Amino acid sequence: MSQEKLTAVLLWSCPDRKGLVSRIAQFLFDHGGNILDLDEHVDRVEKMFFLRVAWDMSEFTIPPEKFDEMLLPLATECSAQWSIRLGNEKRRLAIFVSQHDHCLQEILWRQELGEFHAEISFIVSNHPDAGFLAERYHIPFHVFPITEENRDQQEAEELNLLVGAKVDTIILARYMQILSPRFVDRFPHRIVNIHHSFLPAFAGGNPYKQAYNRGVKIIGATSHYVTDLLDEGPIIEQDIIRISHKDSLDDLIRKGRDLERLVLARALRFHLEDRVLVHGRKTVVFD
Amino acid sequence: MSQEKLTAVLLWSCPDRKGLVSRIAQFLFDHGGNILDLDEHVDRVEKMFFLRVAWDMSEFTIPPEKFDEMLLPLATECSAQWSIRLGNEKRRLAIFVSQHDHCLQEILWRQELGEFHAEISFIVSNHPDAGFLAERYHIPFHVFPITEENRDQQEAEELNLLVGAKVDTIILARYMQILSPRFVDRFPHRIVNIHHSFLPAFAGGNPYKQAYNRGVKIIGATSHYVTDLLDEGPIIEQDIIRISHKDSLDDLIRKGRDLERLVLARALRFHLEDRVLVHGRKTVVFD
Amino acid sequence: MSQEKLTAVLLWSCPDRKGLVSRIAQFLFDHGGNILDLDEHVDRVEKMFFLRVAWDMSEFTIPPEKFDEMLLPLATECSAQWSIRLGNEKRRLAIFVSQHDHCLQEILWRQELGEFHAEISFIVSNHPDAGFLAERYHIPFHVFPITEENRDQQEAEELNLLVGAKVDTIILARYMQILSPRFVDRFPHRIVNIHHSFLPAFAGGNPYKQAYNRGVKIIGATSHYVTDLLDEGPIIEQDIIRISHKDSLDDLIRKGRDLERLVLARALRFHLEDRVLVHGRKTVVFD
Amino acid sequence: MSQEKLTAVLLWSCPDRKGLVSRIAQFLFDHGGNILDLDEHVDRVEKMFFLRVAWDMSEFTIPPEKFDEMLLPLATECSAQWSIRLGNEKRRLAIFVSQHDHCLQEILWRQELGEFHAEISFIVSNHPDAGFLAERYHIPFHVFPITEENRDQQEAEELNLLVGAKVDTIILARYMQILSPRFVDRFPHRIVNIHHSFLPAFAGGNPYKQAYNRGVKIIGATSHYVTDLLDEGPIIEQDIIRISHKDSLDDLIRKGRDLERLVLARALRFHLEDRVLVHGRKTVVFD
Repeated sequence: MSQEKLTAVLLWSCPDRKGLVSRIAQFLFDHGGNILDLDEHVDRVEKMFFLRVAWDMSEFTIPPEKFDEMLLPLATECSAQWSIRLGNEKRRLAIFVSQHDHCLQEILWRQELGEFHAEISFIVSNHPDAGFLAERYHIPFHVFPITEENRDQQEAEELNLLVGAKVDTIILARYMQILSPRFVDRFPHRIVNIHHSFLPAFAGGNPYKQAYNRGVKIIGATSHYVTDLLDEGPIIEQDIIRISHKDSLDDLIRKGRDLERLVLARALRFHLEDRVLVHGRKTVVFD
Repeated sequence: MSQEKLTAVLLWSCPDRKGLVSRIAQFLFDHGGNILDLDEHVDRVEKMFFLRVAWDMSEFTIPPEKFDEMLLPLATECSAQWSIRLGNEKRRLAIFVSQHDHCLQEILWRQELGEFHAEISFIVSNHPDAGFLAERYHIPFHVFPITEENRDQQEAEELNLLVGAKVDTIILARYMQILSPRFVDRFPHRIVNIHHSFLPAFAGGNPYKQAYNRGVKIIGATSHYVTDLLDEGPIIEQDIIRISHKDSLDDLIRKGRDLERLVLARALRFHLEDRVLVHGRKTVVFD
Repeated sequence: MSQEKLTAVLLWSCPDRKGLVSRIAQFLFDHGGNILDLDEHVDRVEKMFFLRVAWDMSEFTIPPEKFDEMLLPLATECSAQWSIRLGNEKRRLAIFVSQHDHCLQEILWRQELGEFHAEISFIVSNHPDAGFLAERYHIPFHVFPITEENRDQQEAEELNLLVGAKVDTIILARYMQILSPRFVDRFPHRIVNIHHSFLPAFAGGNPYKQAYNRGVKIIGATSHYVTDLLDEGPIIEQDIIRISHKDSLDDLIRKGRDLERLVLARALRFHLEDRVLVHGRKTVVFD
Repeated sequence: MSQEKLTAVLLWSCPDRKGLVSRIAQFLFDHGGNILDLDEHVDRVEKMFFLRVAWDMSEFTIPPEKFDEMLLPLATECSAQWSIRLGNEKRRLAIFVSQHDHCLQEILWRQELGEFHAEISFIVSNHPDAGFLAERYHIPFHVFPITEENRDQQEAEELNLLVGAKVDTIILARYMQILSPRFVDRFPHRIVNIHHSFLPAFAGGNPYKQAYNRGVKIIGATSHYVTDLLDEGPIIEQDIIRISHKDSLDDLIRKGRDLERLVLARALRFHLEDRVLVHGRKTVVFD
């Protein structure tokens, strides 16, 4: 994804009305922006309009610091929710992990390859186990053991770290602690989780055990934004793998690792490239 | 599946013990049976042994009517559940359908092609709509409208028909009525249903609507044996298809049709070729 | 796909330049067209721009018969290739088939269900075998046996029929004769074929035999537009299914039937909904 | 795959004949071997019999050093090819890599997790680039730059290393040099390669470029045993991923990486668990 020239991406959602594509395209064109990519979607049931547009900034006449001001009239008129990101702004990530480190390993490896347009600020864990990986990839590592008693205080310290490092997005890479609503509300649609089942099947604990006991022929993994309702957040990406009676619970866990890694990596990529719009508990993913 | 020579298939399950494969293989060999296919599986957790073996009958010295007697000592010793089917015995099927006839159409079409080793005795419906298909393929068609009041009586008449035609297996090809436990108990592991979701997700009514509302990225279909617990029977086969925000509820229904047809057809084929063993709520499928 | 209101679809491709989305969106907006769906793609390597836009005609101020005239200046300026289709214009199809009738059966069944926005004018075959299906679905059926000697004359008669019925699109539903370049050139990107392999693997005759002999673990099917180069036309859709050493050549053929049916049906749907743009030997499919 | 008790695996192939399963099962049973897993396959076209059987050694009365002697009479009678491996014998691996290190990374990571029943003796490369990974995972790393002139001599030195370390299996983890027939013949069905296409499509160099230019809708990866015929060896495993017109050549390469990693890892696992039998250019994989 070498981007020699500077680009910008606008994500926009609002109640549907006539002429929206035309007006936004015209706005960009009038200010010298050459559209590189435009995706739009109209939800006919919800009567909502969703748009992602990327354009070349090289001859764009609005400086980044004036974007908000210039778009505000149209956005207000349309009751739109919107965000703009410049191609040279890298999101800052924090990765939360517990004892299973395969998803963490996958993200660190892809980051090393340059697949993600992001910086990894630090890794947080409630266990010291993943420390060796943090060290291997030279990422700061913070251990916050969690108990019922210290949860609030530990989260407060985590928040201090996150704010201090200007972290934009949190990845729960098999982090087995439940975050408090207060914590979650600070990062709306910016906490990406991987759940090791095909949601809504097998929500909650031990999904592979649940799947094994039910005798399903396919297992899945689901990446979603975290909300206050456990395993109920908007789904970004899912995938599955076939299993059979030959597979033991250990086989499910092993096969599931491959799924979890890929699904989380794909979801994270969509998020980092500003390809995900949320409406209610559903997502529009312009892949 | 042209089978010029006569074959037989033994399905066998029992608590695991030493030497089972050897003893059964030896039994067949000693009586002139040439093994064509042997699959076995040991469930280490349940300590159960499952076997499917097919052999050539051309030089087999035990006549079919003596099978049971000859196997009984070994089966009794092993506390085994078992069944034998000759390759020239076709199962007799009844297909139950309501208004959506795509699964019925698929089965009739495959039957016409010769894909199933079976005979279709008749079609039952609670609506007259599918009658044109029955007529097209020259299959008897019986309409039994169901109300809360007449359910017991209608089921009794259906049972009469089924018994009269020596029906072995019932296929619920999108039959939207719930069968009574009394009815179900007459056909243990011989009623094959198709549920239009990836069970256990979206059990119950309107699964496509449920999936649409939840915003999943993949939909599925599940074929299972019917038990007294709705949508809880042992799963024979499942498959999925990817969807996106672009898909309306109607698109889900349309894409799901293709899934349902294929999943039911595959499950039915496994069933008709005696490839499915049930233990508790799980299946062993020797495909 | 119930379309209560009248819509129109524009397909457009031209060398890329600035402001294309904006100008086309503006053109529609200025004439009262409410954009329902817009997809665009820029091929950075070929420097080509591709667009599909669907809009609501209810308040559109340009009457259909004036479309061409009104778009011509912009299209000329951009050296564009383009087409417009109204939602109430159904394409007219002819289906060519030989002896394997499963793809024909699939199309007739989906047409009966209303999945295709089209009319089937007639069926052509070089064998009488599929006549019973034509009769079952009440479609005219024409048999043109082909030999080396009579090919030219038979094709000429087929062309007469096609022209007479104003057929727009020809579907080769496992039609095993090779069409002459003269015939093919009359229907550029309007002959849709299904090849029973994952092209470019196993082009030519007997692809399942080739796949069986090579020992692949996956087989495929490919739907493509027919060009003068056999099995080399632009690919519209492909899909695959897993096989194993257990599968005989007959199993490959049986499993392949399911693939062929689905892949051809999907490709045909894309074609009929004006979702396919061709550039060279590649397609852009706005699905 | 925790194996507390000692097991053994027999792989056996021979011309088909009556009573083979029975005789082999009886042989094991007679010597106190409890069969844990038995898979057999008869190729009806080739008239070949293939078997994999795993048994518990705890009460087996034949000591490992007597296996060959005891099986020899039956094997000779059947003209069988066979091998036995004890569960406590780990295969010794050498990994060959060039500049793309994602497959190497994947294998090292899985080895760290304990997924493979093997030891990695060393890594060979024609470039120094992957040295950092070797160091990270503490595996010896040998660089052998290859030119037309020095190929024979370098291969001779590699062979010395391989023989010295008693290497059993070589993994070509995106090794871009062609091995000489002399080298290949030393490791029959013990060199596992990953080719970054769905073979036989796009054999040879630059398969992603070939796929991009052809406009396929699906790309694949193939793991196979290396023979003297380039990209023609027996296929162990394949898988695919869907692409679209939106994917650039770089996207194909990125998506392909995920495929290559998984397909090679799966094939390697089959190989290391003695699940692959080769006959001609085809494999039987008892997964």
